[in-house]
Amino acid sequence: MFKSITVSKIASPYDCIIGSGALELLTEKIPLVTNARRFLVITDDTVDSLYSDKLLSLLSDGGFDCVKFVFPHGENHKNLGTVSDILEFAADNRFTRSDGIIALGGGICGDVAGFAAAIMLRGIDFIQIPTTFLAMIDSSVGGKTGVNLVHGKNLAGAFYQPKLVICDTDFLDTLPPERFSDGTAEAIKYGAVFDKALFDRLASDFRADISDIIYRCIQLKATVVAEDEFDNGRRQLLNFGHTIGHAIEKCSDFEISHGHAVAIGMVMAARAAYKTGISSEDFSPAIADILSRNNLPSSTDIPASDLLSVMQLDKKRKSGSITLVLPKKIGECVLHKIPVCELENFINLAI
Amino acid sequence: MFKSITVSKIASPYDCIIGSGALELLTEKIPLVTNARRFLVITDDTVDSLYSDKLLSLLSDGGFDCVKFVFPHGENHKNLGTVSDILEFAADNRFTRSDGIIALGGGICGDVAGFAAAIMLRGIDFIQIPTTFLAMIDSSVGGKTGVNLVHGKNLAGAFYQPKLVICDTDFLDTLPPERFSDGTAEAIKYGAVFDKALFDRLASDFRADISDIIYRCIQLKATVVAEDEFDNGRRQLLNFGHTIGHAIEKCSDFEISHGHAVAIGMVMAARAAYKTGISSEDFSPAIADILSRNNLPSSTDIPASDLLSVMQLDKKRKSGSITLVLPKKIGECVLHKIPVCELENFINLAI
Repeated sequence: MFKSITVSKIASPYDCIIGSGALELLTEKIPLVTNARRFLVITDDTVDSLYSDKLLSLLSDGGFDCVKFVFPHGENHKNLGTVSDILEFAADNRFTRSDGIIALGGGICGDVAGFAAAIMLRGIDFIQIPTTFLAMIDSSVGGKTGVNLVHGKNLAGAFYQPKLVICDTDFLDTLPPERFSDGTAEAIKYGAVFDKALFDRLASDFRADISDIIYRCIQLKATVVAEDEFDNGRRQLLNFGHTIGHAIEKCSDFEISHGHAVAIGMVMAARAAYKTGISSEDFSPAIADILSRNNLPSSTDIPASDLLSVMQLDKKRKSGSITLVLPKKIGECVLHKIPVCELENFINLAI
Repeated sequence: MFKSITVSKIASPYDCIIGSGALELLTEKIPLVTNARRFLVITDDTVDSLYSDKLLSLLSDGGFDCVKFVFPHGENHKNLGTVSDILEFAADNRFTRSDGIIALGGGICGDVAGFAAAIMLRGIDFIQIPTTFLAMIDSSVGGKTGVNLVHGKNLAGAFYQPKLVICDTDFLDTLPPERFSDGTAEAIKYGAVFDKALFDRLASDFRADISDIIYRCIQLKATVVAEDEFDNGRRQLLNFGHTIGHAIEKCSDFEISHGHAVAIGMVMAARAAYKTGISSEDFSPAIADILSRNNLPSSTDIPASDLLSVMQLDKKRKSGSITLVLPKKIGECVLHKIPVCELENFINLAI
């Protein structure tokens, strides 16, 4: 049995299909969402060795023509150079506007492949097949694609929605525990921002219910994306822990992963919100507790001044101010705009 | 007196203002179309030496903060490397989503700057100030932005509409005759495709009526863009002469300019259309005549086989077929899809 969620109220609605073995549905779903019969499968070297053969066989058996592009894993390859390589490779293989792209991999792969699809010939159809817990509940849904610049994470990109998202939970069997916990951190974020029941559920082993957790997280994300596709309002709630989190990732040279950085970011934001009087209660211990139960960190020894300097370049900063997501209670966060000049005090209180 | 056309029926309508001295309107128009108070002015070295100071003074006098990015002129710099440089430069200067981009220059500058605006922080506001006749009537209106790949022209890009287009005809005073005639070739195209009166008007000196000609061309383009923003149907009529033209540009290593290549492409397409029986009459002599009156070429010695090889990669090719624009009469063209396998015969007849 598979679960399905439609991301709707956007220009081109699409389905996310979730469950063990969901990949098997791919070839019957493709003709329902695109006319493409030829696909460029984009993946990284780690995922390639595990799952490319399976995907290419499925596509081939389904009568689809495929070409594969593999790039080295890791945040350092999420850049315009990789996108350029993909575009030249596709041109070399005579891809046209009626062909498609399939992203097979984690968040980096989905972001890079989605961005390549967005700008290839000014846009070709693409399908997300996330292979990590994090990518399933976060980056594969909602249409944010992009790459890093030397100056920071995700500074170049496009809003470009996939035609289909397939979340096959079987991929998670080969996911290292550290990477699984990256997803858990984002799931905890959904709980903290929107849904206390989800938050509480994540306090004990939830692996047996992974499809339900993924379903609930995507449902929450789809709702907020439908309300605010281009991230000008309510969608920014998804950034709880992210403004500080991105700075932590950057300052650690991406040694600290996205999920782990967001985990720390949530605790820091909650603490500073209380200390500045924005939140009436200190929710940081409750968040730190649930993170610790999931082997996730809640603090960093990166100096406040380093974090501050990176945050001042955050793309979510509008001139003169920055919008933070802060907890009103567990299950309800609010957007709070502070002047850039107050950021230093905020970060010092957060540490 | 200025003329104004609104490009409407798209997600964000915008105005194109035309006339001698129209640049003076810039600072009063900006607040009507964007909240940005800070702009990255993007231009090439040729235009920089002529007009940057004037523009920057105007902006500064109007209370806007500005930073300038200059890149070397020429098609060889219309690539992802230049876009990457722009994005890093903007990040280095702490540009945020509430800042804007102004493109000051010809078509290459507008395409590069517009694409940079489209992907910078997933999209920031931008304004087109075209300085060539060609850019005024063609690339600055309609939202097609992009760069070349090693494999071909405009293979990476985005549909991204400007917030405002200012066509100040005073810029044309410094435009070399060769570059002016590039614009004339596109104006002749608008006449051939949509408007016989415009076509006929271009047979004699039209320089005194340049604002009217620009107005009419933009009006024709705005109409077709409103009907088909994403180039899936009627907008393709604008490609008359372009499929062969792009191949000519590429094969000449961009020694032959866009307008000159399109001129030749129109004559070749019209000739082949007649020889294959698609057109009932041979319009190539009429087109060649008006081109010659404007010092534009109508033939090339590039071998048919070279053109063919490039055309097979044209991004307008859908798998298995290519859509050509062919004249039914002067002032009315039609879209005609031919199988890729018939392209060789078509090109041989076109030469």
